[in-house]
Amino acid sequence: MTPGPGVSRTDLPNGFSCSGVNSGVRRYRPDLGIIISEVPSVVAAVFTQNQCKAAPILYCQKLLPADNIKAILTNSGQANAATGVLGEKNNLIMAQATAERLKCSSQQILTASTGPIGVHLETKKIIESLNELIERQGTTAEPFALAILTTDLVPKTVSTQVTLSQGKVQITGICKGSGMIHPNMGTMLGYFLTDAQLTKDQAAQILTYATDRSFNMISVDGDSSTNDCAFLMANGISEVSLKTDQDFKAFQQAIEEVAIFLAKSIARDGEGATKLIEVNLSGAPDLALARFAARGLVMSPLVKTAIHGEDPNWGRILARLGADQVPHACLEKMSLWLQNILVYENGAPILADLKVIRAQLKSDTVVIKINLKSGDQQATAWGCDLSKKYVEINAEYLT
Amino acid sequence: MTPGPGVSRTDLPNGFSCSGVNSGVRRYRPDLGIIISEVPSVVAAVFTQNQCKAAPILYCQKLLPADNIKAILTNSGQANAATGVLGEKNNLIMAQATAERLKCSSQQILTASTGPIGVHLETKKIIESLNELIERQGTTAEPFALAILTTDLVPKTVSTQVTLSQGKVQITGICKGSGMIHPNMGTMLGYFLTDAQLTKDQAAQILTYATDRSFNMISVDGDSSTNDCAFLMANGISEVSLKTDQDFKAFQQAIEEVAIFLAKSIARDGEGATKLIEVNLSGAPDLALARFAARGLVMSPLVKTAIHGEDPNWGRILARLGADQVPHACLEKMSLWLQNILVYENGAPILADLKVIRAQLKSDTVVIKINLKSGDQQATAWGCDLSKKYVEINAEYLT
Repeated sequence: MTPGPGVSRTDLPNGFSCSGVNSGVRRYRPDLGIIISEVPSVVAAVFTQNQCKAAPILYCQKLLPADNIKAILTNSGQANAATGVLGEKNNLIMAQATAERLKCSSQQILTASTGPIGVHLETKKIIESLNELIERQGTTAEPFALAILTTDLVPKTVSTQVTLSQGKVQITGICKGSGMIHPNMGTMLGYFLTDAQLTKDQAAQILTYATDRSFNMISVDGDSSTNDCAFLMANGISEVSLKTDQDFKAFQQAIEEVAIFLAKSIARDGEGATKLIEVNLSGAPDLALARFAARGLVMSPLVKTAIHGEDPNWGRILARLGADQVPHACLEKMSLWLQNILVYENGAPILADLKVIRAQLKSDTVVIKINLKSGDQQATAWGCDLSKKYVEINAEYLT
Repeated sequence: MTPGPGVSRTDLPNGFSCSGVNSGVRRYRPDLGIIISEVPSVVAAVFTQNQCKAAPILYCQKLLPADNIKAILTNSGQANAATGVLGEKNNLIMAQATAERLKCSSQQILTASTGPIGVHLETKKIIESLNELIERQGTTAEPFALAILTTDLVPKTVSTQVTLSQGKVQITGICKGSGMIHPNMGTMLGYFLTDAQLTKDQAAQILTYATDRSFNMISVDGDSSTNDCAFLMANGISEVSLKTDQDFKAFQQAIEEVAIFLAKSIARDGEGATKLIEVNLSGAPDLALARFAARGLVMSPLVKTAIHGEDPNWGRILARLGADQVPHACLEKMSLWLQNILVYENGAPILADLKVIRAQLKSDTVVIKINLKSGDQQATAWGCDLSKKYVEINAEYLT
């Protein structure tokens, strides 16, 4: 994999182009982006389970999965959520204006929005910028990745190649997300582009598999967004399909790796974050519990602040596991490691050297390892620490 | 009701005494308290549902409800949680030493602990302080209320009288709590003392009713403690029992009022809090949903930081309601008020004057009112804002 954040260039798969411009909705930063496929593409998506769904989510849900998609238009700075009937109209106007310029049906244009909730889209500014947006098409992911950021500090892109039985295909992943991050079935804007040839069913199955193990296992603040969604867009231009079971698995694994890379990049770039937290929970009696408990730890403000303070206060980890209903019988057997140093073994504290642990916690990645010794299920979750900066960013967002 | 925080005196009901001392576990502040009943008392309690239960919780659960309790000993500075078998031994030693001095069975002594998790009790210091603790008994609640505080800024006490068919009885409530506050069936140390004559069943029923509507409806940080518990202790010295249905209701209502007063005092004194948040949610199709959604709002870091910043970012309220699975059909009908100013009506934003709302948000109490217009169930929840101070307190707690 070739990680793309920063100044590097992440190439798009053959047949894709993208761009980003400033439409004037935001003062300086680019706020409008588009991904265009040369040929009609297969697209599957996963959407937020939030009952308060943004207009673009309601719109895309009706269209997908599909095999005729030409482009995904995305604006930042206005989420077009909690905007009622007018919000749905504005979304459709945007899709139609894009379709006109790309000479296709509006049903071939997908939309996504991100930004403050409850504000109506400035469609005039957006429509007036569409010509420039389409003219600027290029074959690297960065202009688009930059245009969809909100409180993110860095763009998030990655690219990889997979060799299948019929030949090589490429996968490029792009996402954004920093706050209101607690995805449930998708995350705040994720895009997987590939020149592989997939059926709609394959695309849907692979995307769900990958998001369950990546975006759905991260949390920045426990608040699920109204606009979360992730798209898998396959244009088939390589003429390489998933011929064998092995092909399917290899491709699925590649998408999973890209998804985990992107999910971790969101957690690390969480609002105000100074550290990435990784929780490895094993020995659980069932998978749902393992996933719930692992993610619970990266949601706990007390665990997050302790790690921010480089404070080996592991009692808070036990308290959270118990609060999340990990059975007493498991807690009595469990062992716990902070940065690979054992602090709790077989249900009792160990006299660990707190000074040594404190020194290890200075790292920018903190690993919490838990073995419940009560089964063979395991889960990994990612999050970030909770800093004063998080409060600062979120006490001043709208105004 | 006579609220007691600060310099005021809160009298205990007849037949009760209490005290607090510094045992040396903490450097300066009092850290050991006791409530003593002249005669054996009826006691019911509610305990944390956290699966990681502290030693005193496991101990009290075995004894209660009971009608022969003499005293409740409470220490702060060490939670005696996640301390394994040795923790349970230490707790028993403490109960036994108290029983010896009060000349009763150890089964008549209840215990409670609060402080950092995973540290073994310094029983020697505690036992050496018991004589002084018992000598210092007095009839006001403050010395005990002070001895059980941790990150709380103010002691929390309140007293009220109820006139029943047979005469007057008194109720005194004491509690502590500031962080790791998201009670589930009890809260971090609550005590209701009364000279009324109750049966064990009445005490249990009334306590559950009151805690469900008070402690179980507050949240400071969404983390449920290992040590949460609330006791209702009735010594019967007034010889006034709950003779009639009306008596039962009047007494239950008085306990509920005391419980809500104490619960609000915990929320207002939440770690780093500058504002009390009250959520009134009505028009819900069912009670469980109303309670879950109301409490969800006071847990949301994004809602809490917006209120901290006096920022009328009400879109975050809608996002959280949707994430907590308030049905889309309810959100389409709902109306929302911030400080009694309508900002969202019948599922669409209203052009409210943000400057006016911002001015109203400067108040130290912020009221969020929601009407889902989808039923007749309602719930009220309390919480506090999320400030940089919260991060500061919790990044530096153990070390």
